[in-house]
Amino acid sequence: MAQKAAIIGGGVIGGGWAARFLLAGWDVCIFDPDPEAARKISEVMANAKKAAPFLLDGPQPTEGNLSFADSLAEAVKDAAWIQESVPERLAMKHAVYQDIQAACAAEALIGSSTSGFTPTQLQEGAANPSQIVVTHPYNPVYLLPLVELVASPATSADQIARAKTILSSIAMKPVHIKGEIDAHVGDRLLEAVWREALWLINDDIATTDVIDDIITHSFGMRWAQMGLFETYRVAGGEAGMRHFISQFGPALAWPWTKLMDVPEMTDELIDKIASQSDAQSGAYSIRELEAIRDKNLLGFIRLLKQHHWGAGAFLNEVEASRAPANPTLDDVDVTAPLQLHEGRVQPEWIDYNGHMTEHRYGQVFGEATDALLALAGMDEAYLARGYSYFTVETHIRHLQELSQGDDFTVRTQLLSATGKKLTLCHELRNDEGVVVATSEHLLLHVNSQESKSCEPQAPVAEAMARLHEAQSQLPAPDFCGRAVGMRPASS
Amino acid sequence: MAQKAAIIGGGVIGGGWAARFLLAGWDVCIFDPDPEAARKISEVMANAKKAAPFLLDGPQPTEGNLSFADSLAEAVKDAAWIQESVPERLAMKHAVYQDIQAACAAEALIGSSTSGFTPTQLQEGAANPSQIVVTHPYNPVYLLPLVELVASPATSADQIARAKTILSSIAMKPVHIKGEIDAHVGDRLLEAVWREALWLINDDIATTDVIDDIITHSFGMRWAQMGLFETYRVAGGEAGMRHFISQFGPALAWPWTKLMDVPEMTDELIDKIASQSDAQSGAYSIRELEAIRDKNLLGFIRLLKQHHWGAGAFLNEVEASRAPANPTLDDVDVTAPLQLHEGRVQPEWIDYNGHMTEHRYGQVFGEATDALLALAGMDEAYLARGYSYFTVETHIRHLQELSQGDDFTVRTQLLSATGKKLTLCHELRNDEGVVVATSEHLLLHVNSQESKSCEPQAPVAEAMARLHEAQSQLPAPDFCGRAVGMRPASS
Repeated sequence: MAQKAAIIGGGVIGGGWAARFLLAGWDVCIFDPDPEAARKISEVMANAKKAAPFLLDGPQPTEGNLSFADSLAEAVKDAAWIQESVPERLAMKHAVYQDIQAACAAEALIGSSTSGFTPTQLQEGAANPSQIVVTHPYNPVYLLPLVELVASPATSADQIARAKTILSSIAMKPVHIKGEIDAHVGDRLLEAVWREALWLINDDIATTDVIDDIITHSFGMRWAQMGLFETYRVAGGEAGMRHFISQFGPALAWPWTKLMDVPEMTDELIDKIASQSDAQSGAYSIRELEAIRDKNLLGFIRLLKQHHWGAGAFLNEVEASRAPANPTLDDVDVTAPLQLHEGRVQPEWIDYNGHMTEHRYGQVFGEATDALLALAGMDEAYLARGYSYFTVETHIRHLQELSQGDDFTVRTQLLSATGKKLTLCHELRNDEGVVVATSEHLLLHVNSQESKSCEPQAPVAEAMARLHEAQSQLPAPDFCGRAVGMRPASS
Repeated sequence: MAQKAAIIGGGVIGGGWAARFLLAGWDVCIFDPDPEAARKISEVMANAKKAAPFLLDGPQPTEGNLSFADSLAEAVKDAAWIQESVPERLAMKHAVYQDIQAACAAEALIGSSTSGFTPTQLQEGAANPSQIVVTHPYNPVYLLPLVELVASPATSADQIARAKTILSSIAMKPVHIKGEIDAHVGDRLLEAVWREALWLINDDIATTDVIDDIITHSFGMRWAQMGLFETYRVAGGEAGMRHFISQFGPALAWPWTKLMDVPEMTDELIDKIASQSDAQSGAYSIRELEAIRDKNLLGFIRLLKQHHWGAGAFLNEVEASRAPANPTLDDVDVTAPLQLHEGRVQPEWIDYNGHMTEHRYGQVFGEATDALLALAGMDEAYLARGYSYFTVETHIRHLQELSQGDDFTVRTQLLSATGKKLTLCHELRNDEGVVVATSEHLLLHVNSQESKSCEPQAPVAEAMARLHEAQSQLPAPDFCGRAVGMRPASS
């Protein structure tokens, strides 16, 4: 039988928790007196279902049942986990815990989404203080894995271990903070940035968009993959963390932020940070960390290019400003094989052997096919009319390997363009002109709005006819027209 | 002729600038009296060349020439851009500008990498103050695009525009900060976080690894794609930025950070932020921003899974804890077609039509082939011995579409396993059991250390023989053994 989680207090945070438990196969029962609760939860769930199911690959648990309880007692009955996300008023939280503990199982754990209160504050006056821990998530809860887990001395090591196990099982990362402090750790860092940013706006140094651009195009990307200390460890280079921090000593006295109440940078504090950093990152050399950092940053930027957002949108603009204009039929010699596509083997195309992965050949050939279709006039306007070519068959032969950074060109030959059918072939060549792979394709012209094949339309029909007339004079390469395993005549 | 950039002061920052200019086709001349300068620059360049050439797709400029000058005057002669990255001592910078301006062209621009000084401070006593601007980059300079551009009133609008054009042309994003302030904007935010983090370490609330995990698993990822203000705008929901900020008012009075000197949250300040946020993000609805945010976050997390790092490494562990054990030959009915691979269509597999992209079919079939090879005993130990199967031919037929989130299964049949050659075919089925694509593959067994084909070895040889004996009794599907465009007999 599925385990049960009780969500006390809906809204964006409660809804995010509900999604986490449901998608991990737990039954979820929600109690929230807000008459809008069901609508708010359903909106969060709708967002969650678009994204969260893709966090994990492989078989996933059957989604649990979602229900709404008429009373808090009904919601928490038999629940193994109770997540409290009511507003940040301590008296209200105390009253809620009283009601929860009157009805819940003794072994249940009660996690609070509180941003600010410490577990000791939450436990004041509770019937069973040990049950209550801080489990503070970050929005969007259904995607960001972090949970700040803070316990008071009343909570046992076994209870903390159970909390960690349950949180991990719903794909959330519990980070156990050993000290109790207002706002825990993450929100303290955020609050410092927020207050500094308010000064910058207040004093007309920068506007919100300038501050956001500065964050997203620099340390935001760094912090998605290495935190404050690991980033500085790498920046410090082989001289090490101790050297780097010692250098920072003087800056603490400078008016570089409004936060002027600073800890004294004693030898003891420097030692503490340096030894913690060694324990954290010492398994890697600085060179290794640099390589990991750069691979991550490049991956983020290339992803943002695909999404045309942030740093990626900026680079797309740079790229567009450098790109040559697309050739037209009049720019090329249509009586010879066409060279319309070239590129470089990208880092994410590489397999564990260091070679270009099999299916990326399919990608390159697909892009070369797109270049031929663009040459024939298949542009955005044509696609917007509902017309397109769909690939229905592909035959690829792998002859040689390509490695990261290798430049390549594709030579394309149209074999036939008759009615709806288009056949063509490509040769992929490395920068020495050696053919490393070949492909043969059959495409059908379609009306994608009606989901059926149809004859090409102007101007593509005329261009294809012209290409067919010129290219069909060329002999078909000997690798065409053969089944898998049949050798080309000449080899 | 290529334009020339002068880099005054090498090191990690100067080297990063050099890489940016060189890869954009500029000639670069470096002056740095440090005898280690050439070695330091070459190390940065080596890192840069592994990553930066992949930032932009399409044809790229021919790399410029790198040289080292014996004098500052030689370095800056005829340079259109002069980047100063000497240590953060104002008197030293003033002396350097005096030497630069004695030898450089009047129309050259002098950018300073200073973290702390304002342009007005830098220009004190300069022969031509207007030439000197702050262009503060972020490490690693060859990957992170941000440049904080700050000018004093002495610099003309035309000079600022030229600086922006040049920076954009080397793929760096100039963000123009209108107000002059110590440490500009980014480093002020970083300094606030740094000082707050030092308190957390000093007071034993958290260790460096805890703080870093908290950053990387929560707001770090958010800030790689939306900054502080846009993130809060989304979090505020349809109620809007004004409502969200008003809520934050009370928190400013709470001891949530050591930064207790806070601006007063007046109606005027609230209005200012809300209207700036509208100007920044108002082109998108909150729902649209949520969708963009979630797509970006999911993409980052899936990328980090591939890199087995940070939040991705954590999810890989969750995934491994849920994964069923790999089947062995004794677990399956080898006399029937095999079902060894299943999955879900991922967001990054989708083309602009909303359908699974052509080459991702190749990826799925490749993964299904890997599952068959794993069943036959090709594990990490076998690969470590230098043996593997390489795909040499692939023939894919596309019959139906798949969409994001569709679950699929692959049915696999071994056609023959004779000596070095392995032929097999797959049927890809949607969750209704409809065949959406088929494939046929020829693989060769190889000794990858010697880069030549060879007979399979134990235990794979025995397993393949057993599979061949059982599976070759099955009729070959009618789509096998045919060239592109030939219809299967039954259709």
